[in-house]
Amino acid sequence: MDLAKLAEAIAKKIAKKVKQENFKKFGEYVGMGADGTETAYIDKVAEDVAIRMIGEKANMLSEEAGFIDNGKEYTLVIDPIDGTKNAINGIPFYGVSIAIGKERLSDVEYGIVVNIPTGDVYKARKDGGAYLNGRKIKVEDKPVYCLSLGKSGNEKTWGMAKQGTVRAMGAAAVEMCLVASGAASLYFMPRDVLRVTDLAASTLIVREAGGFVYDAHGSSLDMPLNLEKRSGVIAASNPNIVGELI
Amino acid sequence: MDLAKLAEAIAKKIAKKVKQENFKKFGEYVGMGADGTETAYIDKVAEDVAIRMIGEKANMLSEEAGFIDNGKEYTLVIDPIDGTKNAINGIPFYGVSIAIGKERLSDVEYGIVVNIPTGDVYKARKDGGAYLNGRKIKVEDKPVYCLSLGKSGNEKTWGMAKQGTVRAMGAAAVEMCLVASGAASLYFMPRDVLRVTDLAASTLIVREAGGFVYDAHGSSLDMPLNLEKRSGVIAASNPNIVGELI
Repeated sequence: MDLAKLAEAIAKKIAKKVKQENFKKFGEYVGMGADGTETAYIDKVAEDVAIRMIGEKANMLSEEAGFIDNGKEYTLVIDPIDGTKNAINGIPFYGVSIAIGKERLSDVEYGIVVNIPTGDVYKARKDGGAYLNGRKIKVEDKPVYCLSLGKSGNEKTWGMAKQGTVRAMGAAAVEMCLVASGAASLYFMPRDVLRVTDLAASTLIVREAGGFVYDAHGSSLDMPLNLEKRSGVIAASNPNIVGELI
Repeated sequence: MDLAKLAEAIAKKIAKKVKQENFKKFGEYVGMGADGTETAYIDKVAEDVAIRMIGEKANMLSEEAGFIDNGKEYTLVIDPIDGTKNAINGIPFYGVSIAIGKERLSDVEYGIVVNIPTGDVYKARKDGGAYLNGRKIKVEDKPVYCLSLGKSGNEKTWGMAKQGTVRAMGAAAVEMCLVASGAASLYFMPRDVLRVTDLAASTLIVREAGGFVYDAHGSSLDMPLNLEKRSGVIAASNPNIVGELI
């Protein structure tokens, strides 16, 4: 069985399901996730799709359900909704992110991110390049920066908000895919808040597009495939910008 | 003939046409617009659709072509691409904006904004309420703010980038529609750079959704239907925030 095909089927099913749901329901909270944060209805709906479709074909790691050990070699690392706040409020920029790996972010072999409101599909396979809607993508150097701002930012990003063309779109994995596709040259989240579920697919996609991914302290990003560690992220078209950010 | 139907047909045709075009072409510049700025290929393609479809059925005011006087009572006020920079770079958040009026922004009778990558349609008719995809929308108070940042911002917006949930999406008309639909409570562009073509449709949509639209100095927004005046904008779910911004 091809797990990549399964991951893509799950991502597309979640995207379809989420689009069908009534927006007003998205604001409801249904309980606590495995990481201790509130789980929005939309996250629960999306995650249930993944649990059902994976069955016992692979292990699964997800923000809400935690690690589901089916005794398999591979784990599907899932963020059912990247940009939950956007989805709940009705800002049309959020996605679903799925990666396939074994132990760590650095051994991830496949990643897919779907921008749900637009249907754009970003994919990468280790050593196989990155693609947007089937077309090969590459990073580009340009003064267009995606930053985490508001209470999710810090002095560095607030300071950067004055330079060049600044966007704050509110969905880390999809914004990292903007870097991969050459739409922006940087995505910067300075605070150690992101889990490997948020980052696994998009990190591979950026790297396969020729880009660079670091934690907020400037080390090449790697994390074990569990929910314990949290990290910031710098995803960039070239390594030169990192010195200014750390 | 119903000009509102014509405006909607033009907006949908432009959205379709722009989605079909190859993204790489969008970066090309084809000449100077009526307002003296460079015209991107994408703007020209979109505007040509409008010129052709309007024929002599109404006057037309557009950023690139300027005022086309067909001796009619009504003018279609068009921004063929709202968020050109997003479209050119490949950030999937930009729109087309069309309003129908006579002399001034305050006599605009109909407005439509289509978010091109998602297909979302925001519409309003004077005294008839505002709608998103056919569903009635209302503003909502919430700490979610859309700001103009980078070189398009100023000290006020850079300062606000530290508070609450901050988004900078890069397309004024579509961001004003986020205020109308209750996805955000504020869109703030502090600098006097926007033309009536950028603002005409979305101002009606925000007001018909129960919101408030001011210039960046706190006066209720009004402008003649020509390209001479430029304005900043505050679109808000309630008037209380204005005092903090001016």
